[in-house]
Amino acid sequence: MLTLNRILSSELSSNDGKRVTLSGWVRQIRPIGNMTFLVICDRAGKFQSVIKLPTDSNQVAWETSKTIGLEDVVTVFGTVHADPRVKLGGAELLIDEIQVLNKAERNLPVDISGKTQTNFETRFDHRSLDLRSDKQQAIFRIQNTICMAFREYLEQNGFTEIHTPKIIATGTEGGANLFPVVYFEREAFLAQSPQFYKQMLVGAGFERVFEISPVFRAEAHDTPFHLNEYVSVDFEMGFIQDEQDIMKHTEGSIRNVFKRVSEENTKELQTLGSTISVPTGNIPVIHYWEIQKILEDAGKEFPDPLADLTREEESVLCNYAKEKSGSDFVFISNYPTTKRPAYTMPYEKDVRFTRGYDLLYRGLEIVTGGQRIHQYELLKQKFIEKGFNPDDFEFYFEVFKFGMPPHGGQAFGLERLTARMLGLENVREATFFPRDKKRLYP
Amino acid sequence: MLTLNRILSSELSSNDGKRVTLSGWVRQIRPIGNMTFLVICDRAGKFQSVIKLPTDSNQVAWETSKTIGLEDVVTVFGTVHADPRVKLGGAELLIDEIQVLNKAERNLPVDISGKTQTNFETRFDHRSLDLRSDKQQAIFRIQNTICMAFREYLEQNGFTEIHTPKIIATGTEGGANLFPVVYFEREAFLAQSPQFYKQMLVGAGFERVFEISPVFRAEAHDTPFHLNEYVSVDFEMGFIQDEQDIMKHTEGSIRNVFKRVSEENTKELQTLGSTISVPTGNIPVIHYWEIQKILEDAGKEFPDPLADLTREEESVLCNYAKEKSGSDFVFISNYPTTKRPAYTMPYEKDVRFTRGYDLLYRGLEIVTGGQRIHQYELLKQKFIEKGFNPDDFEFYFEVFKFGMPPHGGQAFGLERLTARMLGLENVREATFFPRDKKRLYP
Repeated sequence: MLTLNRILSSELSSNDGKRVTLSGWVRQIRPIGNMTFLVICDRAGKFQSVIKLPTDSNQVAWETSKTIGLEDVVTVFGTVHADPRVKLGGAELLIDEIQVLNKAERNLPVDISGKTQTNFETRFDHRSLDLRSDKQQAIFRIQNTICMAFREYLEQNGFTEIHTPKIIATGTEGGANLFPVVYFEREAFLAQSPQFYKQMLVGAGFERVFEISPVFRAEAHDTPFHLNEYVSVDFEMGFIQDEQDIMKHTEGSIRNVFKRVSEENTKELQTLGSTISVPTGNIPVIHYWEIQKILEDAGKEFPDPLADLTREEESVLCNYAKEKSGSDFVFISNYPTTKRPAYTMPYEKDVRFTRGYDLLYRGLEIVTGGQRIHQYELLKQKFIEKGFNPDDFEFYFEVFKFGMPPHGGQAFGLERLTARMLGLENVREATFFPRDKKRLYP
Repeated sequence: MLTLNRILSSELSSNDGKRVTLSGWVRQIRPIGNMTFLVICDRAGKFQSVIKLPTDSNQVAWETSKTIGLEDVVTVFGTVHADPRVKLGGAELLIDEIQVLNKAERNLPVDISGKTQTNFETRFDHRSLDLRSDKQQAIFRIQNTICMAFREYLEQNGFTEIHTPKIIATGTEGGANLFPVVYFEREAFLAQSPQFYKQMLVGAGFERVFEISPVFRAEAHDTPFHLNEYVSVDFEMGFIQDEQDIMKHTEGSIRNVFKRVSEENTKELQTLGSTISVPTGNIPVIHYWEIQKILEDAGKEFPDPLADLTREEESVLCNYAKEKSGSDFVFISNYPTTKRPAYTMPYEKDVRFTRGYDLLYRGLEIVTGGQRIHQYELLKQKFIEKGFNPDDFEFYFEVFKFGMPPHGGQAFGLERLTARMLGLENVREATFFPRDKKRLYP
């Protein structure tokens, strides 16, 4: 049985002197005199192997090695030889047998060696090959840790995983930017967010819920920051005092995400040349009404205190927090009412503001959260004020009539968080198979 | 701060004599003479509390208690009194203060007490209220454990979590039963399965991948077993010998799922009156060509050995395995070629059969898996034989030209597995907000 005895590249050095079996893709072939070196890649990384001028025992393997090409899928058998001079893991495999499991055609349409730059669109046209490069592998192993760490934190804090419908009859934030679906004889749309459903499930008695699932936004713009389909990472919880209880769990979950990536993905961070900063103390908070003064002190005009923040302004606020508190993270709290959805809890001391916040990291927004309205009458009124017909939202409002606790939650886009954490310029780099206005393939 | 000091109903008995704070929904109100008993429900369960004829210290609370109605959201303060006669957890709370966080309207449109049966459609019309019942809560807490345990097993075995697109240009299994999406100016569809993408990511170097995500099937039938949107729980892995390596991980992951549910959800299983069976030894295997004889020995005719199995026949095979091996689980392996998708690996010794299998539990299919074709030419040929145009699948075929390892995988529907594990008659009972031909709300 092949899989039973197979070891991984990462286990090579601890098997010095033993006869072992490994499998993977042939990533490099270097014939040097009487020897041929093969670098083989498996899911744990790469290892070096060598086949020497044939002896009685490896005659067949030597002949086979002459026919091997890049990206062929092979199983190799041999003896491990630990050698600190071997850059890849300090050990190499002395091959005595090779099995070719599947041949690869010549001329891979993308360069995965990192030696030359393949054109961006070409890379994504051949994405399942492009993903074989070290950098792409590193990105998605880190993304895997992000999801794991987010769930780990929430499971420890009593959250239940939910699965809410992606085919819906009404949009969360009005009718704009919805993808229509032909649903039998009816009109339907793709969900832009699990927002309504996660609130409903808080009120349904689960209290604390989370979901990691695709959402869909029919936005026509083509920027490095937007996707038309992305993975939304959400939680929502009831029985809070105010948005500070949500911020506590934003901080806790993000801390666990950054901590686990820094622990589990040292090698991947190195491959990407990324360093990350794990939040240690309390993350500083800037209230929206403090922004004008901070920006003016930094020599930037900000005449309308309720205006949106540009990326440059966000960057200034991050620098301010970094200088003042040494933190790469900063909360911007109490966003203006005009900038937040209808369900956001107003800040009752000054109703120009809400109990909604963002978390910024190194100049960029990574999480959005806040307290939501739990009072039926107030909620309905806010929907009317934003220009919605409340009748369209009866399915959502009902739970508010029958005992909805004070609650709130947060969301982030998985691809965007991955990209911002790792300093990737285009969010598509953190997406297996991106979907945008131009791209439906692969 | 409310949330900081709040304890849960499950923590009541371990706080005997202490003054504590709890929150939840008022589920029962019983005034008896000088006392009023309140049963309050939080995410951990229910607890009993009592407010006695007013004394100096609880005068206000006594007045408040007179105004409280069912499903009001409250925070109660008081002293814990352990008492083995109290059925709910062996302790009750002697209330001295009540805060009403939100009022509920009278006349809940569904009965969540379990005393009367609300009509099925009415329950689902008011699903976020219906979900408050003990049975519904139990079902989804078990479903939460199912996902957790599945991921736990896979993470321990080197699998990477993936997120693949749900908006696609071509269907996995031909054009039938696809929901069309209006994707800007183009034709697109909703994914019926992550099958192609998970295979591509095995070949992209991740080797072992899993995904838990929604899939969409535009099937018009209205049965207790089908949904038009459901959660597909998938894994796929490379470098296998044959389908037995996949069956090993089907067995391992399903064992962990049943084991963890039996450990974590004793209370919920009791609420539902369900008992489950954790697979212990090796799960027995029935090859498809053995079925005819087994059924005939049981007095059932099965003239065509390549025919589909009816539910009754599956039941007979399960009884056979139970009698022979004492197992509630049985694999049916080597399904006929005509019953499996084009990408299924043929069984080379008899090409009427494949290397595809099902796992049955107590008479019902719960998992489908198998080895897939990894050879480009064979794969293309099989797609042509099933009547597809291979040009439509170039995005999928490419990775097979450039080094695809032998591989396979499995999938199950989360709602269906939950329902079958718990003996629920309708798969909608295991779905938060079901989507079917008639139902797009809530």
